[in-house]
Amino acid sequence: MRPLIAIDWGTSSLRGARLGDAGQVLDSREFPRGILTVPPGQFEAVLHELFGDWLQAPDALCLISGMAGSRQGWQEAPYCPCPAGFAELAQHLLWLQPARIALVPGLSCTTSDTPHTPDVMRGEEVQIFGALQRAGRDSATLVLPGTHSKWVQVQAGRVRRFQTFMTGEVFALMGQHSILGKTMDLAGPFDEAAFVQGLHQAPQPGGVLHHLFSVRTLGLFDRLSAAAQPSYLSGLLIGEELRHQDLKTNADPVILIGNHTLTQRYTLALQQLNIASQSHGAEATWAGLFALAASFLSP
Amino acid sequence: MRPLIAIDWGTSSLRGARLGDAGQVLDSREFPRGILTVPPGQFEAVLHELFGDWLQAPDALCLISGMAGSRQGWQEAPYCPCPAGFAELAQHLLWLQPARIALVPGLSCTTSDTPHTPDVMRGEEVQIFGALQRAGRDSATLVLPGTHSKWVQVQAGRVRRFQTFMTGEVFALMGQHSILGKTMDLAGPFDEAAFVQGLHQAPQPGGVLHHLFSVRTLGLFDRLSAAAQPSYLSGLLIGEELRHQDLKTNADPVILIGNHTLTQRYTLALQQLNIASQSHGAEATWAGLFALAASFLSP
Repeated sequence: MRPLIAIDWGTSSLRGARLGDAGQVLDSREFPRGILTVPPGQFEAVLHELFGDWLQAPDALCLISGMAGSRQGWQEAPYCPCPAGFAELAQHLLWLQPARIALVPGLSCTTSDTPHTPDVMRGEEVQIFGALQRAGRDSATLVLPGTHSKWVQVQAGRVRRFQTFMTGEVFALMGQHSILGKTMDLAGPFDEAAFVQGLHQAPQPGGVLHHLFSVRTLGLFDRLSAAAQPSYLSGLLIGEELRHQDLKTNADPVILIGNHTLTQRYTLALQQLNIASQSHGAEATWAGLFALAASFLSP
Repeated sequence: MRPLIAIDWGTSSLRGARLGDAGQVLDSREFPRGILTVPPGQFEAVLHELFGDWLQAPDALCLISGMAGSRQGWQEAPYCPCPAGFAELAQHLLWLQPARIALVPGLSCTTSDTPHTPDVMRGEEVQIFGALQRAGRDSATLVLPGTHSKWVQVQAGRVRRFQTFMTGEVFALMGQHSILGKTMDLAGPFDEAAFVQGLHQAPQPGGVLHHLFSVRTLGLFDRLSAAAQPSYLSGLLIGEELRHQDLKTNADPVILIGNHTLTQRYTLALQQLNIASQSHGAEATWAGLFALAASFLSP
């Protein structure tokens, strides 16, 4: 296969990897040059400044996923509607240099429940396909925890539907800017018991806008220490996310994609429901871009 | 009855009224001297500085409700547990000067659903009793919308249970600090259609952490203007609050207490569910403190 330069160009960071024939990482680089730091019209220059030596290889193919394809990025690569697999992604690539450099589109998803409110992702689609490849599966429930968590259903190699949850962002806002933050010790270590307490509180009557207030009242009545409050809050919010999922205990493991700190929390949360899971890290991005390239480069 | 000096000493403001024999407001004052502006040990001095002339009346009674009775206030008046009516409140008054100046305690509530997470209010209890007095009722469902909305059940003159929802605070944080704020025009006028759209979205599958993201996606797909987004977000959050209530269409009107902007939104939201409501403003505080005083002063 032609040499692949895989680029993940997000909002706040820019990562790249040069991949070998079998998808192995030959070299990788990371820069704090997310799309927010790049002035309009300067994306090509930044790419060549940071990865120019790799791009000199005459037959190199460069695939770029993430927010570089958003309206605020290099150029807008319109969302590819679900259901979508490699064929649809390949078809919707936005070629910046024909057959040389392309933006991978994000996905959009409209379901019968919500015909008027499409959901979107950009960058995660590549991680999804990479993790599936690594797990040797073509159907799964996947979770990509983070600022905007994604829950994804893949069947027969195509993303059928997904939903975004603003869990990570709400967690950060409550800790940093709300009244709850005033009594919370954000530097405390992860407290598993408090996290599980939050998980169990989430499905109780009242809903999450009510349960959030319990962080404060449990503190007021000395039933939850300042150091344990962030873990309890995390459990509340992840529990709220979980209670809207239709999970089956006898199904194949849920695939979690993200950094260890987050996937560990979801592993714990799923264990409480007797749901098995397996975790993948950032390497899923390279595997996904390689598999996508292979899908249209290989004979 | 003895002259009553009614004081509502909150987190950010200090209001007072001198009331006549029949509870009519003879005079009122408001200062930006919430408890956060008062150094420890200075509460008595501030009260006398701002209301000293009223307090000179030899037989004046002064009742103070609100956060002045919290741990961060003048002195902590321990929460009075529900069920609580005038008798319980009067019994739990914290007398700073015997028979002259007292702090009204807040309420705490523990239900069978949530035996370990008590809910609390401080200041609202007085407004509740004032609004009931004005409405000539002794049983009602009441809502006090705001930063921390309260939903309250009163039966036979006693608060039986209540729940707090962090609706107003989450609304403000999402608009000011989240990614949603970046595309939102917060200065836009109230958009009733967008508000109702948010109300109807709230009970759809996925829950509020998911629906929050629809503010962004509806904007991305040009289905919701920047100016309409705050109203839609408000509808989503108030709708989330409402879907956890057990409301009956043939019941007596729900009593709303708060400023006109907020009570108007709840009126609209309840109308969508065919629930009647009636609204009361800040005057409920004076009526409540008067009725409380009358309950133990009158022969």
